[in-house]
Amino acid sequence: MNKPDTVPQITLGPLSASEKVYLSGTLHPIRVPLRRIATAEGAVTVYDSSGPYTDPGARIDIAAGLAPVRIPFARDRGEAETYPARDVTAADNGFAEGARLVPAFPRRPEPLRATAGRAITQLAYARAGIITPEMEFAAIRENEGRTAAHTRDGEPFGAEIPDLATPDFVRAEIAAGRAIIPANINHPELEPMVIGRAFKVKVNANIGNSAITSSMEEEVEKMVWAIRWGADTVMDLSTGRNIHNIRDWILRNAPVPIGTVPLYQALEKVGGVAEDLSWEIYRDTLIEQAEQGVDYFTIHAGLRREMIGLTARRVTGIVSRGGSIMAKWCLHHGRESFLYERFEEICDICRAYDVSFSLGDGLRPGSIADANDAAQFAELRTLGELAQVAWAKDCQVMIEGPGHVPMHKIKANMDEQLKHCHEAPFYTLGPLTTDIAPGYDHITSAIGAAMIGWFGTAMLCYVTPKEHLGLPDRDDVKTGVVTYKLAAHAADLAKGHPGAQARDDALSRARFAFRWEDQFNLGLDPDTARAFHDETMPKAAHKEAQFCSMCGPKFCSMKISQDIREAAEAEAGTCPNGLTPAAE
Amino acid sequence: MNKPDTVPQITLGPLSASEKVYLSGTLHPIRVPLRRIATAEGAVTVYDSSGPYTDPGARIDIAAGLAPVRIPFARDRGEAETYPARDVTAADNGFAEGARLVPAFPRRPEPLRATAGRAITQLAYARAGIITPEMEFAAIRENEGRTAAHTRDGEPFGAEIPDLATPDFVRAEIAAGRAIIPANINHPELEPMVIGRAFKVKVNANIGNSAITSSMEEEVEKMVWAIRWGADTVMDLSTGRNIHNIRDWILRNAPVPIGTVPLYQALEKVGGVAEDLSWEIYRDTLIEQAEQGVDYFTIHAGLRREMIGLTARRVTGIVSRGGSIMAKWCLHHGRESFLYERFEEICDICRAYDVSFSLGDGLRPGSIADANDAAQFAELRTLGELAQVAWAKDCQVMIEGPGHVPMHKIKANMDEQLKHCHEAPFYTLGPLTTDIAPGYDHITSAIGAAMIGWFGTAMLCYVTPKEHLGLPDRDDVKTGVVTYKLAAHAADLAKGHPGAQARDDALSRARFAFRWEDQFNLGLDPDTARAFHDETMPKAAHKEAQFCSMCGPKFCSMKISQDIREAAEAEAGTCPNGLTPAAE
Repeated sequence: MNKPDTVPQITLGPLSASEKVYLSGTLHPIRVPLRRIATAEGAVTVYDSSGPYTDPGARIDIAAGLAPVRIPFARDRGEAETYPARDVTAADNGFAEGARLVPAFPRRPEPLRATAGRAITQLAYARAGIITPEMEFAAIRENEGRTAAHTRDGEPFGAEIPDLATPDFVRAEIAAGRAIIPANINHPELEPMVIGRAFKVKVNANIGNSAITSSMEEEVEKMVWAIRWGADTVMDLSTGRNIHNIRDWILRNAPVPIGTVPLYQALEKVGGVAEDLSWEIYRDTLIEQAEQGVDYFTIHAGLRREMIGLTARRVTGIVSRGGSIMAKWCLHHGRESFLYERFEEICDICRAYDVSFSLGDGLRPGSIADANDAAQFAELRTLGELAQVAWAKDCQVMIEGPGHVPMHKIKANMDEQLKHCHEAPFYTLGPLTTDIAPGYDHITSAIGAAMIGWFGTAMLCYVTPKEHLGLPDRDDVKTGVVTYKLAAHAADLAKGHPGAQARDDALSRARFAFRWEDQFNLGLDPDTARAFHDETMPKAAHKEAQFCSMCGPKFCSMKISQDIREAAEAEAGTCPNGLTPAAE
Repeated sequence: MNKPDTVPQITLGPLSASEKVYLSGTLHPIRVPLRRIATAEGAVTVYDSSGPYTDPGARIDIAAGLAPVRIPFARDRGEAETYPARDVTAADNGFAEGARLVPAFPRRPEPLRATAGRAITQLAYARAGIITPEMEFAAIRENEGRTAAHTRDGEPFGAEIPDLATPDFVRAEIAAGRAIIPANINHPELEPMVIGRAFKVKVNANIGNSAITSSMEEEVEKMVWAIRWGADTVMDLSTGRNIHNIRDWILRNAPVPIGTVPLYQALEKVGGVAEDLSWEIYRDTLIEQAEQGVDYFTIHAGLRREMIGLTARRVTGIVSRGGSIMAKWCLHHGRESFLYERFEEICDICRAYDVSFSLGDGLRPGSIADANDAAQFAELRTLGELAQVAWAKDCQVMIEGPGHVPMHKIKANMDEQLKHCHEAPFYTLGPLTTDIAPGYDHITSAIGAAMIGWFGTAMLCYVTPKEHLGLPDRDDVKTGVVTYKLAAHAADLAKGHPGAQARDDALSRARFAFRWEDQFNLGLDPDTARAFHDETMPKAAHKEAQFCSMCGPKFCSMKISQDIREAAEAEAGTCPNGLTPAAE
């Protein structure tokens, strides 16, 4: 791995004991990446969101960007066409100049958009019965190389999870509004993935520009680092200067869907004064970002003026940035939110590029005291209404959720969301199950995330240890992603996802057989597991040891248990039910 | 704090912004410690298991031990008497000699035991309608200085949690077998606490001797460090040499209940050869430890010979050390476990000193694949039978639980335990909700721990980041304890514990009002929260800042939200329901 001291570089190379493999499509000429982990009892194949960066055969040059792996499906069909892009203005980059201006990405292809009257969204195709390359790609990924279901005995709470995700099943779930494939037609570098409760629970990681940007590599590396550990999508929440150019560098190098909150950039364009926001500036920002290839927009259109008063007696008021900006605008102007009033026009823009909606919960609770209150659920019902508006425009939609919620109130969030948002995928931030653990909120929230993932949430937005306290560094991002991957996996197991338990079983067999390297390599973070082991047992020979430092050789229950198995089998002969003979 | 580089010392002094306060009893002359956290809006009083070490007024000398704060209740009543202690043998300390022998604790008082025919356990007194000093002490602690319930709206799953824990309520719960106060009459240094599902969820931390013991301070410090961060009980799982002497040092300095697995020491006495264990050696070890003051014993008496074969086809066999040792013994001798056969005799010993039982789950699942299997539940039913045997002998009992369990199988563990173990308190290790995150198993297990705590588990045994990999160091112990404290608190909130949410609300108000220091101090780990904040905003002035480094001053939603509150209140006038007027 390239990790010099001063110049940030892109982390390359496979994870421990892993190789990249590609499966082919049968409907479309696609190559679907998976990760194959070598073990003593054979390879275990797992989902892989890390992109070409973990493929030693890929040539990485961030100034060139990733190869365009997506088939220009709509274009081939004559339903999308290029056009002269909107001009980049100084405001797009916060009026950064000279040395403070991040250079523009070297290449600027003309953007695509739907030809007049055409619906080119995944939803439109799904409804028309068309299986797109994106759908087949996502379906193959989901199966992780399986051809049948592994052990599955979960409780899916109504999610209808098939033994194998077929391309047509993906299509049907999208057509029903129960799943989305965020895939802007201007993001050809994307390896498509599906978000929906019939599929594996996904994880989003947030990144953002630094106050002092030292290089484009640094910004791209944040995304590469997050996906290396398993982030399925990345939100670029940059503020301040250089937003436009940084986003271009990220998108041209991103194999995962990139989400944004366009309001943040719009606010920068009016100097940070919420009252000065206007529909025209916001609309222009949507087009700017859609042309660049942003795959999903968080839009807080459900926060209506009449709801603001519902927050006045809250312990923590409005904690969503987007929500508070819009609330401030509404109060100042004494008007309804332009995001709500212009929502159909917003849909028309998203429809032209297939930008998915992530309808933001501007009124999410920011404390245990405010969970599941009138403000939160009033907005949720409005988000459900907006989802139907978007669907009528063939736009893909997911719904954002909380926040801070004690365990006994989590299920109601999912139930209300399913009911009022008509099964549109739910995308939650945690939720945090207590307020009292600053410094440990990745854990506080992983509890809630695992539970709400089990109940049906399709994607979990990670929380890092720095939540509420400061900017996450590289270690925090990794900790946050791995924590959320384990929460998502706990949810997959509990839902009875057909492939989930295979990896647990392989790791547990390795553990029981003292195959230490296999145990590390099958884990979510082989490097940390190995380092922890080596702190007390550093020698290579210890990797073969029939014990570990916790109990030492005499006490090892795993070792004794193996002896017992041999003795029991000898005693029981071929007893098929595993019972020892009853007689003495 | 005393943390020199070379000589380990005991960590002393209060937590950030905290002072120790003592409440008096009304029935007994007791002083019950609580922690008072100073904030700008007044003090918040919380439970405090850290003992005199956080009281600047206490004189700490580990060679003298803590002051005996417990009233010798049974002795005063003429129901317990001293007698000449069992001789300490070389085998008790693993035949350590010379420089390798940890010195004996300087003071060796004669042990107490019940006079012939007397039942001096908390259970016996509770059944007789007697409120002991221990019961009053534990009741006052539970209330954390409250005189009424705070907001409570949880789902307690049948736990009957009163607004205030009265001494007689504690007595009644103990009499019903639903709670225990682990309190050996030979542990006068103990600050009594209660374990039961009608009370706050408790956390246990495991410690153990080092391979190379550098000092008695080091061993005592492990316990002091664990309780500083909130461990309610500590299990000494030492193996190898010096077990007896180290335990004496720990007990004489322990304000919390100390638990052990006596089988570990018994095994040392037979050179680590499980087959050489005998009832006589085990019995002698129980008496040795009971005389020292061990408060609860993990005893794997529920693992019967006939169950061993049920584990033969498991993915991870028997992962409990105690369980695997006994299984090996049974198989070798072709006999029933002596722990099961001699259980009534074991009860007689525990009864004489009031050592509580923690009936061990030797067949707990060590992998997702093995969760809730026939072996596990066969043993659980036997543990329920043994609980009734122990209760018939006036012994206090809790039941140990798993282990590795996916989320959808956690509730069944609690339900089966309540049913088959007649509501004896449940004490679980996690459970871990996946197998695939070595290095992060404190988190994987905190998910399961929070859930099973909500469902009714009374105490959670912590898991550190080093689980499955190596020996936890000081940082790992702290991480494990804080992680489990937040899981236990999440459970208290979800159960609707009458005082739980007060601290969340105080912290959230501090967060909303940008009272950074109050936010840190009200958290479970003020030092880490402050350090994380200071990484990006180190200046003292930033502690007053109306924003943080995550969003910066322009974007701060909390700040905007405060502006909104003022504007909404101005617009709404005195509107009592917090709604803005409907008219424009």
